[in-house]
Amino acid sequence: MCGILGIWGRDQVAAELMLGLATLQHRGQDAAGAITFDGSFHVKIGRGLVSEVFADKHQERLRGPWGLGHVRYATMGSTDVEDAQPVHVSYPYGLAMVHNGNVTNFDEVRESLYAEHHRLVSTSNDAALILYTFAAELEKCDLRSLSILDLFGCVEATQRAIAGAYSAVCLIAGRGLLAFADPHGIRPLVLGRRETEAGPEYAFASETTCLDFLGFEAVEEVGPGCAIFIDGQGEIHRHQGVRGRSAFCVFEFIYFAREDSVLRGRVVAEERERMGRALASPVAAAGTPPDVIIDVPASGYFFAVGLASACDAPFRRGLAKNHHIGRSFIQPTDEERRRSVRLKLNPIRGVVDGLRVAVVDDSIVRGVTSRRLVSLLRAAGAREVVMVSAAPPVRYPCPYGIDMSTRDEIIAARQSPDAVRRLIGADGLVYQPLESLQALYRDVGCCDACFSGEYPTGLDAEALTRIEREKDRSGRAG
Amino acid sequence: MCGILGIWGRDQVAAELMLGLATLQHRGQDAAGAITFDGSFHVKIGRGLVSEVFADKHQERLRGPWGLGHVRYATMGSTDVEDAQPVHVSYPYGLAMVHNGNVTNFDEVRESLYAEHHRLVSTSNDAALILYTFAAELEKCDLRSLSILDLFGCVEATQRAIAGAYSAVCLIAGRGLLAFADPHGIRPLVLGRRETEAGPEYAFASETTCLDFLGFEAVEEVGPGCAIFIDGQGEIHRHQGVRGRSAFCVFEFIYFAREDSVLRGRVVAEERERMGRALASPVAAAGTPPDVIIDVPASGYFFAVGLASACDAPFRRGLAKNHHIGRSFIQPTDEERRRSVRLKLNPIRGVVDGLRVAVVDDSIVRGVTSRRLVSLLRAAGAREVVMVSAAPPVRYPCPYGIDMSTRDEIIAARQSPDAVRRLIGADGLVYQPLESLQALYRDVGCCDACFSGEYPTGLDAEALTRIEREKDRSGRAG
Amino acid sequence: MCGILGIWGRDQVAAELMLGLATLQHRGQDAAGAITFDGSFHVKIGRGLVSEVFADKHQERLRGPWGLGHVRYATMGSTDVEDAQPVHVSYPYGLAMVHNGNVTNFDEVRESLYAEHHRLVSTSNDAALILYTFAAELEKCDLRSLSILDLFGCVEATQRAIAGAYSAVCLIAGRGLLAFADPHGIRPLVLGRRETEAGPEYAFASETTCLDFLGFEAVEEVGPGCAIFIDGQGEIHRHQGVRGRSAFCVFEFIYFAREDSVLRGRVVAEERERMGRALASPVAAAGTPPDVIIDVPASGYFFAVGLASACDAPFRRGLAKNHHIGRSFIQPTDEERRRSVRLKLNPIRGVVDGLRVAVVDDSIVRGVTSRRLVSLLRAAGAREVVMVSAAPPVRYPCPYGIDMSTRDEIIAARQSPDAVRRLIGADGLVYQPLESLQALYRDVGCCDACFSGEYPTGLDAEALTRIEREKDRSGRAG
Amino acid sequence: MCGILGIWGRDQVAAELMLGLATLQHRGQDAAGAITFDGSFHVKIGRGLVSEVFADKHQERLRGPWGLGHVRYATMGSTDVEDAQPVHVSYPYGLAMVHNGNVTNFDEVRESLYAEHHRLVSTSNDAALILYTFAAELEKCDLRSLSILDLFGCVEATQRAIAGAYSAVCLIAGRGLLAFADPHGIRPLVLGRRETEAGPEYAFASETTCLDFLGFEAVEEVGPGCAIFIDGQGEIHRHQGVRGRSAFCVFEFIYFAREDSVLRGRVVAEERERMGRALASPVAAAGTPPDVIIDVPASGYFFAVGLASACDAPFRRGLAKNHHIGRSFIQPTDEERRRSVRLKLNPIRGVVDGLRVAVVDDSIVRGVTSRRLVSLLRAAGAREVVMVSAAPPVRYPCPYGIDMSTRDEIIAARQSPDAVRRLIGADGLVYQPLESLQALYRDVGCCDACFSGEYPTGLDAEALTRIEREKDRSGRAG
Repeated sequence: MCGILGIWGRDQVAAELMLGLATLQHRGQDAAGAITFDGSFHVKIGRGLVSEVFADKHQERLRGPWGLGHVRYATMGSTDVEDAQPVHVSYPYGLAMVHNGNVTNFDEVRESLYAEHHRLVSTSNDAALILYTFAAELEKCDLRSLSILDLFGCVEATQRAIAGAYSAVCLIAGRGLLAFADPHGIRPLVLGRRETEAGPEYAFASETTCLDFLGFEAVEEVGPGCAIFIDGQGEIHRHQGVRGRSAFCVFEFIYFAREDSVLRGRVVAEERERMGRALASPVAAAGTPPDVIIDVPASGYFFAVGLASACDAPFRRGLAKNHHIGRSFIQPTDEERRRSVRLKLNPIRGVVDGLRVAVVDDSIVRGVTSRRLVSLLRAAGAREVVMVSAAPPVRYPCPYGIDMSTRDEIIAARQSPDAVRRLIGADGLVYQPLESLQALYRDVGCCDACFSGEYPTGLDAEALTRIEREKDRSGRAG
Repeated sequence: MCGILGIWGRDQVAAELMLGLATLQHRGQDAAGAITFDGSFHVKIGRGLVSEVFADKHQERLRGPWGLGHVRYATMGSTDVEDAQPVHVSYPYGLAMVHNGNVTNFDEVRESLYAEHHRLVSTSNDAALILYTFAAELEKCDLRSLSILDLFGCVEATQRAIAGAYSAVCLIAGRGLLAFADPHGIRPLVLGRRETEAGPEYAFASETTCLDFLGFEAVEEVGPGCAIFIDGQGEIHRHQGVRGRSAFCVFEFIYFAREDSVLRGRVVAEERERMGRALASPVAAAGTPPDVIIDVPASGYFFAVGLASACDAPFRRGLAKNHHIGRSFIQPTDEERRRSVRLKLNPIRGVVDGLRVAVVDDSIVRGVTSRRLVSLLRAAGAREVVMVSAAPPVRYPCPYGIDMSTRDEIIAARQSPDAVRRLIGADGLVYQPLESLQALYRDVGCCDACFSGEYPTGLDAEALTRIEREKDRSGRAG
Repeated sequence: MCGILGIWGRDQVAAELMLGLATLQHRGQDAAGAITFDGSFHVKIGRGLVSEVFADKHQERLRGPWGLGHVRYATMGSTDVEDAQPVHVSYPYGLAMVHNGNVTNFDEVRESLYAEHHRLVSTSNDAALILYTFAAELEKCDLRSLSILDLFGCVEATQRAIAGAYSAVCLIAGRGLLAFADPHGIRPLVLGRRETEAGPEYAFASETTCLDFLGFEAVEEVGPGCAIFIDGQGEIHRHQGVRGRSAFCVFEFIYFAREDSVLRGRVVAEERERMGRALASPVAAAGTPPDVIIDVPASGYFFAVGLASACDAPFRRGLAKNHHIGRSFIQPTDEERRRSVRLKLNPIRGVVDGLRVAVVDDSIVRGVTSRRLVSLLRAAGAREVVMVSAAPPVRYPCPYGIDMSTRDEIIAARQSPDAVRRLIGADGLVYQPLESLQALYRDVGCCDACFSGEYPTGLDAEALTRIEREKDRSGRAG
Repeated sequence: MCGILGIWGRDQVAAELMLGLATLQHRGQDAAGAITFDGSFHVKIGRGLVSEVFADKHQERLRGPWGLGHVRYATMGSTDVEDAQPVHVSYPYGLAMVHNGNVTNFDEVRESLYAEHHRLVSTSNDAALILYTFAAELEKCDLRSLSILDLFGCVEATQRAIAGAYSAVCLIAGRGLLAFADPHGIRPLVLGRRETEAGPEYAFASETTCLDFLGFEAVEEVGPGCAIFIDGQGEIHRHQGVRGRSAFCVFEFIYFAREDSVLRGRVVAEERERMGRALASPVAAAGTPPDVIIDVPASGYFFAVGLASACDAPFRRGLAKNHHIGRSFIQPTDEERRRSVRLKLNPIRGVVDGLRVAVVDDSIVRGVTSRRLVSLLRAAGAREVVMVSAAPPVRYPCPYGIDMSTRDEIIAARQSPDAVRRLIGADGLVYQPLESLQALYRDVGCCDACFSGEYPTGLDAEALTRIEREKDRSGRAG
């Protein structure tokens, strides 16, 4: 999971790039980077929050009216700046790129690039791989008379070559900004437009909340296989490239996207309430109704409110959250490790005492947090604890950029719901039924492979094993 | 506003001190410090979050079973490490201290110390002032045969000398931990106890959430004028020192304390819901009922829920919060400054569109955030916006450690509610009536001077002016 | 002035790269960088000393048996990491480069690259310019069957395209290390070889002191127009490319190179003594012989010793040097600024008292240090002070990488020696006669343009003006 | 070994304090600190060079006309900021102190302080120990009517209580600056005076080079047992306190002090030449005269020049020094460790080739550098290598603040000169005869205990063992 932003402006773009990235900070807190163009490229990439990476001086250094930015979520061990984004090359054009997603045929593409084009790609930078593949296509054209049609042809060739999930924005030096998505449109990317006295300006962002903040009106999404090019004069050119079935990541609705964003025309907060209401029936089926419904703040909130609105139990805030923890700062002993959930969450006295409590989380992946929450709530006096997951059981790893650990770590991968319930120590465990979720998103066309195992890109078991192994090794993520 | 913690343990205390301070991080994010004792003192103080100040190595360096910790909220300009806590001296005993509050007769005490005792106190460190005053009393005793009674006598003398708000914990080298409060008990401080195989251990903390986290059971509060001493053998000694009328800071209930803390026997979250319910009547009196009630997350939440439970309008989450902003990182232009509220808060589409919206915040001090919120909500389609403040109008500066700006900056100091309403651009403005608040806390005995101007320590206008001027100059805060 | 190093090894090369760069630290203290190759490139570049830029972890991260390193001397204001070295590209091969020198037709080459090849070059990175020019030539070959002859053809084309001074080492991914020099061989570069059990290893370094340290035996210099390629099997291939008259920078002998290095077959320390001896006759011609000869440590030492050996006056150490100053750390007032020379140098009592003192420095550029030294020595009791410059008057700016300020700042650019003497307040001023210097280096073939104005690359006045202007703007330096 | 500075000025003293400390940087590079007084104390202490610890902002923060500064040489492992200087207390006066030296009865004084005065002293801070001892005496006086005589009485009591070496400057808040030395005057301390329009100003510094730089004229040394007090009006008061036989550290002349300093009326550079001349006779006695004399730069220089002037062999610079190494920055392998001397020193080609070389170093302690130099010189072609030590064999550890390792590490502690010669691999080894050295300094009255074992403070073997053990444990150094 990462966040990307590209701005086609008419004045200095650096400050807006930095502030815009800050609104996407929830999509990645491990690294941030930006590149701008004013005839030359200017780059700044660093580890940490946007506010840690960028300082006042970068407003001045990152000169130019066009720019790209990236916030990165890195799996353990892959914090090398070598893998950070944006990436850029100076040939055949000056090209810079940011992308969100994950390539599933990395080694194959890399080998082909190396064999045919003598390009040197590091072993773990997806963005560089996509950029070089696109650049290799671009070289085949006559660069002096490159037409829009040529450009979109290069996008299609890239879409044919690269498998997996990728929503990318490419800055073509002196030419414009080009955005495109993989054939299934797995990751979100939205085009925004705003009027200025000097004429319209454009931005591509992972989420509409970023556009809102910067004052751009969301115009359209970069859907499955789509390409949109803003040329040097500010003209918009659209092209439908290679297209497969729509498979928008349903986990964006469940967890990743911010509640105020609009994805595929739907407000995320409302979607979460809808999913919460859909939980009423399986909760009812799970036995004695709960006395109170509480959320795991902040991600469980809308589900819990939705659930409460559809059943008789009231919603109450039962856990207080520490908003100022920062990064983990000391190597805790085992005893301290056991307290780590509590450092973030603490029961509010009296809310759960003596009651049958339904506690709603967005999903259960490894089960560690759930087990600790159940124990905390019991210690706070809860008579019974029912764990409610707004998502169906997570059973399969995600090869499209979501860090869901390997299969061995996913608690529901090889165990029944009842076994999971016993492992986390709850009195009840309610999952969103997969069918309910699918019913809610039938018209959107979503990828639910982490629940169903049905990978839209037709990944076979062997490929999956290979991806897991690679993930282990390189910690690749976009 | 600051957070303090003192631990009387039996093993190495450093890790618990750091983790405990992290649970008090909401009380101050500008600096953190800790001191431990193992025959010598070991100190670490630095700027920033607990997680930024302390590293693994400090677990090792801060040796010893007893320790004090502090997190600091600094007003602008007073970020000098010279003013940070803990403070310590090596004579007449080894003494270390942390305190939360604000001294109101600083110059007077300083002069007397300098005249009589030749002690050198910096111009802005309250904790050092209290510590030296206490130390000066201690010297008058025969140190070789110092009794518990002597000790409490020194506390009383200190309470008589120092005016203002102070809840302090003092580590007396080789002797034990001593906690005491000012005669009005303005700031919170709670004693906790936990059993270990080696015997009981004790902790004093600003809030119970810290005790909860560390596994201590809250035993009793250090009330108005109280002193509690845990001696070297782990015996508890209590003493009622100089006592005035109880004047516990009501703003702890309104804003400072975390929702899961218990203050004066009351759960903070419940108190906020109660205050919210009390708002129903003034909201009803303010004209057309709202269509929807939303909160300013996260501090307005419980008030909004309480209000919604007492009137017909539903509560909905209408503003999304950015949890990962970090410190402000670039010098924004005016245009960007106007966006700064939005960088933290963004309306959720559809929640407020076409409606009369009541937006609930904990309080209104300078009115800047309120004005921007009103404007954001209108832009998101709200037909009418009613601003609701869970607190009465803030009219007077706080001399007891709360940074409420000077009188010139307090929007309601010299203006009527209607003038304030116009300034923030709202269609309606509802404050908690002061009488309602006073009715809720009559039995607790609270300080509500920032609303009523009735300072429990009997501050006259002249003193107040002087304090404001000093605040301006030195940025003193505890 | 910069220092470069390239190692063709058989095992991990990172540690040797870092240590080797440290021996070249006198050639540049502003930035350091290294790149290694093990199938992918690994890069680390930062500001400051080698010991500040590299840490233990970089030994591990910079994997591979081949590597390049660079230490940088940056003129004021050009400390952007964007301009730092090594530079690298991933197409058409993986190519990395370090260079020492300065390109004099930057804009022209840049425009041609951009027009013909659509390559994007920043406005101030010489190394990138050379690298892209070379890469553009490489593309014209059939990369799959690239022969050694092709490679050297590309070097020649690069030498024809790029004017100025450049000694460069290029790492060609999977192929080998290629070193080449400009047609005049202005900057030093030496090939070293050492035997290991696994076979011979090679290194190219700016100076032999680096090779000595790493245990490589200096084999040959990369002379005017020369190219040397170490292929993947460790075979050496030599080629004489485009060659002009030899114009080795005479300032390397005078100041830049370390005293233990061997340049063009001559030991630097001995050369400096020779130059010192040659000063005896002009010193004698300057009037009363000095009573004592002292050096400006450390750069004036060998000249002073040489001079003393050729005349009757004894050499004594008359100035003590502060070796631990570090970077300038506070903004001094005017008074403090006047002391800045003294912070580094202080007269040793009794050495100069009552005497006619000849103080020997390597050269006089702006005259600021000379003026302060004269004043310091007078204050220490010197009866008369004769300033002796081992170099002739510096009169012209250097377009080949030496930061000699612009013409306006060069004290002797437009003034007679006697005017300079008066400006620095000395009783006498002796320069090395240009003819003496030229006589000493006739057989080497040196560039003495900073003294004579005779630029080996045939620079006209207009070009020079342009270069000065650019220098002012971009602070370009290699 | 440390450097101290105290300034009694009439304007802001911060900038001068920092710059002055920089001139003492050769006495300690591990930490630096400063304290100033303007009614309150202002402190800044940090690790590293003066230029790393202090920044522009500290010029502003360290307000006041009086100040103390310290640069610290720390033995391995004692880099805790807890042990750094200056130290200060706020009672009974505000007192701050810096000292240079080492206390030899630390535990005894500490226990007495704790027993009698309940003062808490850390286990390794000499300066705090001296300060508290002095403060304890001060308390016995009537502070309101404290006379100069009282003050000097307190100094005498302190001199009686504290054994070892200490030259200290104490800032007494509101009163003045007090300097004093131990009864033997082991460490240097000089008073300087300069005239300003507002009246005279004073400074105490470890060396005259610091006074020179700041424009103070050296007025007198703080000799054995002396105390000098500059009162608030700028009056100088002198007192001869407890005095033993003069035992000024002879190693100051040999190594520590900078060559331009004047100690006990003698210019250090001249002393080193004198010691060099005294080496001529033992060198002659050691067999075949050397063909050439070279120095180990920079500390061997003056000795080598002196020796050359007294025998037939010429002095030449045979080793080049790397001035820009900085701190050691990577963990070298064994092979790299062997090169570490070479990273600093490299033979200059041709100077030693085929010759019998005498290489002069200031002293030989552990013999590691000597062994490597011998090997480097042989590799550079030297036919024979004679190692010459300007100091006699170092045989005993120094309890007075010099880090000479423990007895086990001192190569000559238990071995004959010939055994040492074999260990370092030299063809000859010449030490300065102890008698020669003693003859040179008979009139000064020097401590030569590291050579002779005759400790001026009458340390017995048991005490010595204890000190070594403590040194090992705490790394105490002043």
